[in-house]
Amino acid sequence: MDLEFRTARREDVPVIVGLINDDPVSAARPSSREPDYYAAFEAVDADPRNELIVVEADGEVVGTMQLTYIPGLSRKGGERAQIEAVRVAVPHRNRGIGREMMRWAVERARERGCALVQLTSDKARTEAHRFYGALGFTASHEGFKLGL
Amino acid sequence: MDLEFRTARREDVPVIVGLINDDPVSAARPSSREPDYYAAFEAVDADPRNELIVVEADGEVVGTMQLTYIPGLSRKGGERAQIEAVRVAVPHRNRGIGREMMRWAVERARERGCALVQLTSDKARTEAHRFYGALGFTASHEGFKLGL
Repeated sequence: MDLEFRTARREDVPVIVGLINDDPVSAARPSSREPDYYAAFEAVDADPRNELIVVEADGEVVGTMQLTYIPGLSRKGGERAQIEAVRVAVPHRNRGIGREMMRWAVERARERGCALVQLTSDKARTEAHRFYGALGFTASHEGFKLGL
Repeated sequence: MDLEFRTARREDVPVIVGLINDDPVSAARPSSREPDYYAAFEAVDADPRNELIVVEADGEVVGTMQLTYIPGLSRKGGERAQIEAVRVAVPHRNRGIGREMMRWAVERARERGCALVQLTSDKARTEAHRFYGALGFTASHEGFKLGL
């Protein structure tokens, strides 16, 4: 399968939101927040340290993820590349798309000169954890969240 | 103890780097990277989505942390506030400074309208995990890292 990676455009927002929300772990999170997806898209799109990526196969969006490049004084002053909101469309799962997305993200971080790539994964996603381990990631940290 | 929170200035860099590196968990991380702390400071300082904070007591820097506000389409389009590189100076530990720093960070994220606050903590830092739990954080995620 040929995958094409590109930066998301405004017209991709409904598809991306669909991918993000078509997920039992996300759906189970309580929230009374009024959604404002287009404002969020504009904020990401305007920020050179954030990249919202879509992955296409045969002109169809089959995956999405967001990369954030975080500068800082730890890790000898090297940037961290953080991956959030990774999703592959349900009908396209288990076909290696997630692996290609991670490889692409790691390579992009490497080219940029980042010191590390990091992500967190809900503890309910045990399959994902084996997947990240197989890609060379180490589950070295506890990931803490506090909803506001 | 009266604590004063402020944005870090360029002249704080050596103290902050000292705090970050005076830590057995960080020191154990292998790295051949040439440090460039001032470039990292300038990158953080120039970015409205990153805040490097120092905490002073009696005019002395006793703690530091970095806040990053990450926009995105998950969590209904709400921003995430991420906390990285939390350190309290060794002689000032166990005096409640860390707790005040976390409260301050959570309050800042709340005022900004963030959907959640997140951080990761090395699994070796078991005392820190109890501390974050007591502050209301949930260890809901695995934190994966891949050094480049």
